[in-house]
Amino acid sequence: MKEEIAIVKIGGNVIDDEPSLDLFLKQFSLLKMPKILVHGGGKLATEMAAQMNVPQQLVGGRRITDAATLKIITMVYAGWINKNIVAKLQAESCNAIGFSGADGNLVQAHKRTATEIDYGFVGDVDSVNAELLCDCLEEKYSVVVAPLTHDGQGHLLNTNADTIAQSIAVALADKYEVTLVYCFEKSGLLADVENEHSCIRTIGKATVASMEKEGIIHTGMLPKIHNALQAIEAGVKKVYIGKWSELPEIINEKAGTKIQL
Amino acid sequence: MKEEIAIVKIGGNVIDDEPSLDLFLKQFSLLKMPKILVHGGGKLATEMAAQMNVPQQLVGGRRITDAATLKIITMVYAGWINKNIVAKLQAESCNAIGFSGADGNLVQAHKRTATEIDYGFVGDVDSVNAELLCDCLEEKYSVVVAPLTHDGQGHLLNTNADTIAQSIAVALADKYEVTLVYCFEKSGLLADVENEHSCIRTIGKATVASMEKEGIIHTGMLPKIHNALQAIEAGVKKVYIGKWSELPEIINEKAGTKIQL
Repeated sequence: MKEEIAIVKIGGNVIDDEPSLDLFLKQFSLLKMPKILVHGGGKLATEMAAQMNVPQQLVGGRRITDAATLKIITMVYAGWINKNIVAKLQAESCNAIGFSGADGNLVQAHKRTATEIDYGFVGDVDSVNAELLCDCLEEKYSVVVAPLTHDGQGHLLNTNADTIAQSIAVALADKYEVTLVYCFEKSGLLADVENEHSCIRTIGKATVASMEKEGIIHTGMLPKIHNALQAIEAGVKKVYIGKWSELPEIINEKAGTKIQL
Repeated sequence: MKEEIAIVKIGGNVIDDEPSLDLFLKQFSLLKMPKILVHGGGKLATEMAAQMNVPQQLVGGRRITDAATLKIITMVYAGWINKNIVAKLQAESCNAIGFSGADGNLVQAHKRTATEIDYGFVGDVDSVNAELLCDCLEEKYSVVVAPLTHDGQGHLLNTNADTIAQSIAVALADKYEVTLVYCFEKSGLLADVENEHSCIRTIGKATVASMEKEGIIHTGMLPKIHNALQAIEAGVKKVYIGKWSELPEIINEKAGTKIQL
């Protein structure tokens, strides 16, 4: 019987609002099982860029990471956000360690090849150092991961936090029964995007495909849902999408959307 | 027989100059024994503060850390500097992990009480999680420590890197034969501050006291020398002060100043 662990991803909307972040971290710290938190960025990097007069380029909703932006992202994600989360968890008696993908070679990646779009210093994941995470969890540390990877050649790379959460979940699926939770601002996958009470409680691959075909799933949700399906297909035991303020309920299957094969 | 480990502290002058940093990190990565690098800040935080219009207050050469400055320091020290050093060490096949004092409760501190001067969010060290460092070193990771601590109540604190290096060295002195090296821009403690060739090769507590009395030791050097003496008194095996570009020579006692009781 494998041990259960939780991998939880939170995005910018929680991070940007301190009372929300505090509430979320309290709930996270109360999870009884070994746990990993993967955090995204939030508005602070955009604000910093504005303050420092570094123009931000977005293509198709994605940030182009030039050298100046990578510097800001590294400072904000791996510095300010990651260390504050760790310090706040320490205050909740949750002994957390914060990592970027470079630390202990946790997540190695390669720079995305420029095609029509050059995303700049953006990394696509190649490997995860599962052993490092196992060591930490066995020693009763919780792990907090910033969305940065490295290329093994001395360069940091900006990497999507959903993808990092999924890669880590898959890498640990051999050893643990992994529960992966993508937290965001909605109560789950909504049948009607205008209605928070229309949360679909469980959904399988076939339904996702047909809903996608009919254009019912909001385009912003598609990468997250595909990410979730890939995790399940790669052996992650349970995958949920739900509201950040309902973390315990999601894990107890009383809220959120469960993604199944 | 205890195992030998090295704890090396570098300051801003190396960090601010990328070719120097690269050269230093290559030398550090080649050290055969288990090793910990403690880094200071450098000019980048001051530059960032200027760029962000955060006025910097210095009292007696020490930075007053208000909330805005703490944010910048956290971003620059624990984010940009720490993660770049880690990524660069990875490229040198040195599997490094970067920590702040909050990570794994590595260095807990309390906010310095305001007397005539209120230093702001500055921490004085209370405890070091030696077990975490031992675990990392045993698993063949090198450790890179940023000069930030936490108070256990959810707050990060700015803490002098020399003091962190000393606290870590002392905390590990029971288990290991610790060599502690303070790297800076001079070749060691100089008998004549104008002459780089006047490096005093070994110095004991009594000579330090008499040189200090006669005003021979540069006032900027005094905290470092006192730090070094405290480390030796607390059981650290060997303590050196020397030039960052001569790290292997210092450890082999062919350069730098050895501090003795």
